Amino acid sequence: MAKDFYGDMKLGILGGGQLGRMLIQEAINYNVNIHILDPDKNAPCRKLCNHFECGSLGDFETVYNFGKDLDMLTIEIEKVNVDALEKLEEEGVLVYPQSRIIRLIQDKGLQKHFFKQNNIPTSAFQLISSKENMENSTIKIPFIQKLRKDGYDGKGVKKISSIADLETAFEEPSLIEEWVDFEKEIAVIVARNDRGDISTFPMVEMEFNPEANLVEFLIAPSTYGFEIQQQAEELAKKIADDLQIVGILAVEMFLTKEGEILVNELAPRPHNSGHQSIEGNYVSQFAQHLRAIFNLPLGDTRCRSNAVMINLLGEVGYEGLAKYEGIEEILGMEGVYLHLYGKKITKPFRKMGHICIINDDRELAINNARKVQEILKVKA
Amino acid sequence: MAKDFYGDMKLGILGGGQLGRMLIQEAINYNVNIHILDPDKNAPCRKLCNHFECGSLGDFETVYNFGKDLDMLTIEIEKVNVDALEKLEEEGVLVYPQSRIIRLIQDKGLQKHFFKQNNIPTSAFQLISSKENMENSTIKIPFIQKLRKDGYDGKGVKKISSIADLETAFEEPSLIEEWVDFEKEIAVIVARNDRGDISTFPMVEMEFNPEANLVEFLIAPSTYGFEIQQQAEELAKKIADDLQIVGILAVEMFLTKEGEILVNELAPRPHNSGHQSIEGNYVSQFAQHLRAIFNLPLGDTRCRSNAVMINLLGEVGYEGLAKYEGIEEILGMEGVYLHLYGKKITKPFRKMGHICIINDDRELAINNARKVQEILKVKA
Repeated sequence: MAKDFYGDMKLGILGGGQLGRMLIQEAINYNVNIHILDPDKNAPCRKLCNHFECGSLGDFETVYNFGKDLDMLTIEIEKVNVDALEKLEEEGVLVYPQSRIIRLIQDKGLQKHFFKQNNIPTSAFQLISSKENMENSTIKIPFIQKLRKDGYDGKGVKKISSIADLETAFEEPSLIEEWVDFEKEIAVIVARNDRGDISTFPMVEMEFNPEANLVEFLIAPSTYGFEIQQQAEELAKKIADDLQIVGILAVEMFLTKEGEILVNELAPRPHNSGHQSIEGNYVSQFAQHLRAIFNLPLGDTRCRSNAVMINLLGEVGYEGLAKYEGIEEILGMEGVYLHLYGKKITKPFRKMGHICIINDDRELAINNARKVQEILKVKA
Repeated sequence: MAKDFYGDMKLGILGGGQLGRMLIQEAINYNVNIHILDPDKNAPCRKLCNHFECGSLGDFETVYNFGKDLDMLTIEIEKVNVDALEKLEEEGVLVYPQSRIIRLIQDKGLQKHFFKQNNIPTSAFQLISSKENMENSTIKIPFIQKLRKDGYDGKGVKKISSIADLETAFEEPSLIEEWVDFEKEIAVIVARNDRGDISTFPMVEMEFNPEANLVEFLIAPSTYGFEIQQQAEELAKKIADDLQIVGILAVEMFLTKEGEILVNELAPRPHNSGHQSIEGNYVSQFAQHLRAIFNLPLGDTRCRSNAVMINLLGEVGYEGLAKYEGIEEILGMEGVYLHLYGKKITKPFRKMGHICIINDDRELAINNARKVQEILKVKA
């Protein structure tokens, strides 16, 4: 711990979006001074921090100057200037997750190499320097092409299903991965503090919006058998330990139709697959991230209820000042928790908020979530 | 609802202390613009709102000017300029709780009259204009003397146990109340929205620090029998209905040794006796207050766990920059939730934070709370 909660500890967050916002909601309990850097002057965190700076997360000077007088830095987005973070680390600023981990995870090619080197099961892959190399790759069509850098929220990912699709492939350096005909996408969030304590949240199941390639529906805990859950959680622990990460890490995985678990991608920060933990678990992913980076004992990750999380995405066909339909109706339903992200402008598939639905009866939680999804709309 | 959660609704809070801070933590979920007025330039809310104004809550012009461009105003302290609120109401600003209720509750004499007029059981009392009238009062020693105005957190309250104590009595206009030899202090928080829905939280039991006269220990839910709980909750509902309040109302009561319930005092705002609801109930008192003032359906007040709340008070003998001892140790215990209030300076009995301890086993929750109380200290 840099300081003893004297109210003068300065924690910087790179990125001031909804993840930063939910992290602040929790950090308020610790008297921490929050500094935010974000390129958007209207970022969701702008009015909820001690200091807000509008600037580029990718610029060395901006990140370095933002961080140099802080005690600790964390991130809510991976796409940040890692050279600046490395320099700050050398100068004694605590950077969690560590810069080397952010550098690794920024590049989906390096991530895959890390999996391979550490015997972490993952789909077969090949790195491609340009589109031309693709036809002679060892990975057969259908496959997934991912840009090595800067993809997020489903952007920078493409399925190549036929020779004809090769025309539309990305030009930039990319990673191609064997198409996994999975049964379910699952995720485990794991946290590790500096003294090496490691703790996982129970495995969750995800459903994606195929059009936007975003998590649309998340169910916790999973009802898969103990062995599968344990295997997923052990894998997440192994990765946290292999990385020696300090902070929280989301491990997204495929459960194949053969019952095999393959690691898909990592995110070294609070993640969409953990939002249900705010109401659904004894400790939330945000509280756990703070415990991890402050080197405090990790919290109790057990589920308190069945929880279903749905993302509130901007309705297709609307762009402009956001208007919410159905809030009153959904808040009249049992176990419904609304989280709006403070974004003024909506556009198709933009993450405008999320809703968590809890219930002791899992089926009822799922049914209520489907109702909420029908009722609640963001239009303009 | 003034606005439809377009992110441009302006909610003002009179007072920027811990109650405002916890209300903000919840209001973040609704995209509301928060404006705070507080006389302390270092108030706990100062960096967590869209607009912070440093100014007197008792000054007409200051309160009026602060409120005149807002959509809605609420309070986290009763000691505010009510004339300004009345004028703002006349001009169309929504003021919840309504100014007439704040005026009533500001004066403990008027509160007692309200109880009497509405057949709400309360201890016998007499209004005293000055100390000299006290000797001939109909209320016999021992009695409690309370200043009619401006008391808070145990200040402005005195027990007169003997003729000799009369020397030390308050000079100002006061209320004297028959001494109630109660078995337990209990409280019920009730909420009412503008459409008239009324909902109570389960009754809680309180233990006071006799030296500071502050809630030190709160246990929820109560284990008193159904009839007592129901009677307390019905009383709270009746008061909310009699007042036609919009917002949340804390009803503090005595349970006498004869099993009678007497209403002690009201607080028309989030209250110390409801802090455990953040982790202990499906809806917190802060979320419920927002639902009530936004005229939304009221939330589910049921308990999720046994919950014990302890106030973290500044240690006697220390004044200055607050330092916290034992945080790491208590966060290693099961079901412990820390809420620090962001106050730099500690002094004896100052409310610096609170801790909520939850457990499915009530005795374990209570034992853990006692341990936390021994371990966690605020010194300087």
